[in-house]
Amino acid sequence: MNFSIPDLPDLHDPALTRALQHRLDQKTKPLGSLGQLEALALRLGEILGSEAPQLREPQLVVFAGDHGLAAQGVSAYPSDVTWQMVENFLAGGAAVSVLARLHGIDLTVVDCGVRHEFKPRHGLLVRKIAPGTADSSQQAAMTPEQCTHALSNGMELVRHLNGNALLLGEMGIGNTSAAALLMARLTGEPIEVCTGRGTGLDDAGLARKCAVLQRALDANAAAIASASALAPLAALASLGGLEIATMVGAVQQAAAQRRVVVVDGFITTAAVAVAAALQPAILASCVFSHRSQELGHRRWLQQLGVQPLLDLDLRLGEGSGAALAWPLLESACRILGEMASFESAGVSRSSA
Amino acid sequence: MNFSIPDLPDLHDPALTRALQHRLDQKTKPLGSLGQLEALALRLGEILGSEAPQLREPQLVVFAGDHGLAAQGVSAYPSDVTWQMVENFLAGGAAVSVLARLHGIDLTVVDCGVRHEFKPRHGLLVRKIAPGTADSSQQAAMTPEQCTHALSNGMELVRHLNGNALLLGEMGIGNTSAAALLMARLTGEPIEVCTGRGTGLDDAGLARKCAVLQRALDANAAAIASASALAPLAALASLGGLEIATMVGAVQQAAAQRRVVVVDGFITTAAVAVAAALQPAILASCVFSHRSQELGHRRWLQQLGVQPLLDLDLRLGEGSGAALAWPLLESACRILGEMASFESAGVSRSSA
Repeated sequence: MNFSIPDLPDLHDPALTRALQHRLDQKTKPLGSLGQLEALALRLGEILGSEAPQLREPQLVVFAGDHGLAAQGVSAYPSDVTWQMVENFLAGGAAVSVLARLHGIDLTVVDCGVRHEFKPRHGLLVRKIAPGTADSSQQAAMTPEQCTHALSNGMELVRHLNGNALLLGEMGIGNTSAAALLMARLTGEPIEVCTGRGTGLDDAGLARKCAVLQRALDANAAAIASASALAPLAALASLGGLEIATMVGAVQQAAAQRRVVVVDGFITTAAVAVAAALQPAILASCVFSHRSQELGHRRWLQQLGVQPLLDLDLRLGEGSGAALAWPLLESACRILGEMASFESAGVSRSSA
Repeated sequence: MNFSIPDLPDLHDPALTRALQHRLDQKTKPLGSLGQLEALALRLGEILGSEAPQLREPQLVVFAGDHGLAAQGVSAYPSDVTWQMVENFLAGGAAVSVLARLHGIDLTVVDCGVRHEFKPRHGLLVRKIAPGTADSSQQAAMTPEQCTHALSNGMELVRHLNGNALLLGEMGIGNTSAAALLMARLTGEPIEVCTGRGTGLDDAGLARKCAVLQRALDANAAAIASASALAPLAALASLGGLEIATMVGAVQQAAAQRRVVVVDGFITTAAVAVAAALQPAILASCVFSHRSQELGHRRWLQQLGVQPLLDLDLRLGEGSGAALAWPLLESACRILGEMASFESAGVSRSSA
């Protein structure tokens, strides 16, 4: 695969980190008493390269695509729901539409490979590679060229985004299957540990999904056996989805530009995990918004060594968890920027 | 103790609950896929008595008071920090000031018994019973009359609050001690299980705090041994704080008026637990915003049978956790009010 990954900025700046920590410790509160919110403030300062980071014009991008694998009955919903939900996002009626509107987040939907022709309109970017992937239980989901094209699309679209924060969302019937396959490949976990109920499979449906996903791993065994530096991209092409591949490129570009990347649930974690397998330092640009109820997500977050902000048993996707967590990011920045210090407020310090 | 507790409305309305659940289940998302956010939406609908609940003019009230027990060295900070932080709240520099401002929440500070004379100003209510409680390691913290007066103050001030949601906050050097004592009395747990590091005690400080609190339980053993229906108020008077007692009255009045009560951390939980010991149904009016890092909080929430929204290792108090969780309450209401249904959006349903 011929593909050039953008260089990442070096976010490691001990002087800035010390300055941020000092600033937090001067605020009128017991040391560390804002817990994870302080860790978040530090992270945002490091990403944005500022002692008083300011989030500007947050952009939630919903990457949408269809999956050939859906024909194997791995989802509780028919593939048509992908395009119907894209219409719902654009009409403002989906959960992520409501939450983005409430929290002042711009929403863009990208058709990365939906099996439907959309009329052009505001808020929709058409970057369609194909009307859905091939069925990965039979063959590779994408050709290497399709995968590279999707990555480039993701990079290109982030280059033109406003603001300094990218919130990841996705839509694609069958895409918990693609994410589970990528998890199995990237973490080495057995497929049963990676496979959940998605939008709501019953026990029989879950067993069928596991069997189909094992067939997909077998069908692509040769292609994904590579141990080369670009092996994660081979896995992405063989097992992933057009929306996931586009998202990988978007994450790479966002990190390269020092944007804050807000990760949603299981499927967006798959995109970040592929990017992190290529460039582990990319995780320093990411904030994980929540721990999904989807079976594999807890384990995957642990394997990535990251701590999510929310744990509300969400399993919707769309970017809904990222939008729900957004006020916490704003809060963390305001704490750094607006809280008084012991000195400025004339408050006595701890005797400890 | 001569005291009249306001009657609670009956929030149990099976027809409304069914209507709310039906409404959630028609929304364009897999059943239950918004997890705890759906439970929260249901709860808010039940409290506000509406299929499409709307939160109006949220009020965060910081109840402030000093503690005679602080003279025993139970806190890492001197008592003067109570009034200094009240000044900081009013000047807009404290964490809760910043978070309330960001999230559109009105902030009021109530001097329930701070050892300081404040100049009158906007945002401050003076409902001072005494300049701090007596030292409960020697005698009762309050007289029964002081406690009743504080309860009445709490009720009265809520009657005049705008909006339909009360977010609880508090400030009082020594008040994790008072809350730990109330937890020990109300739950029967040993004092070591109820006592945490507060604003940041070291191991020796924690051991000293435990010893002091055991003395307080012993000193008030006779008064708190009662098994009468008003025993929780005897415990409140003997072991509590003026800000906690005022908060208990506020919670009772808020619940009586079908306001949403948003609980913050360990100390506000103490106030709600006293109110719930008198009227268990009061818990149906409460949303628990977060699980504090303060040692006893996890156990106490479990004993109350409640699930908090956030778990971010906060241990600041002030109402900071309540303010941080507020956007989740707004989100839950908007989901009920603004999301499209499968029918209205023309989205196919699950085949499951």
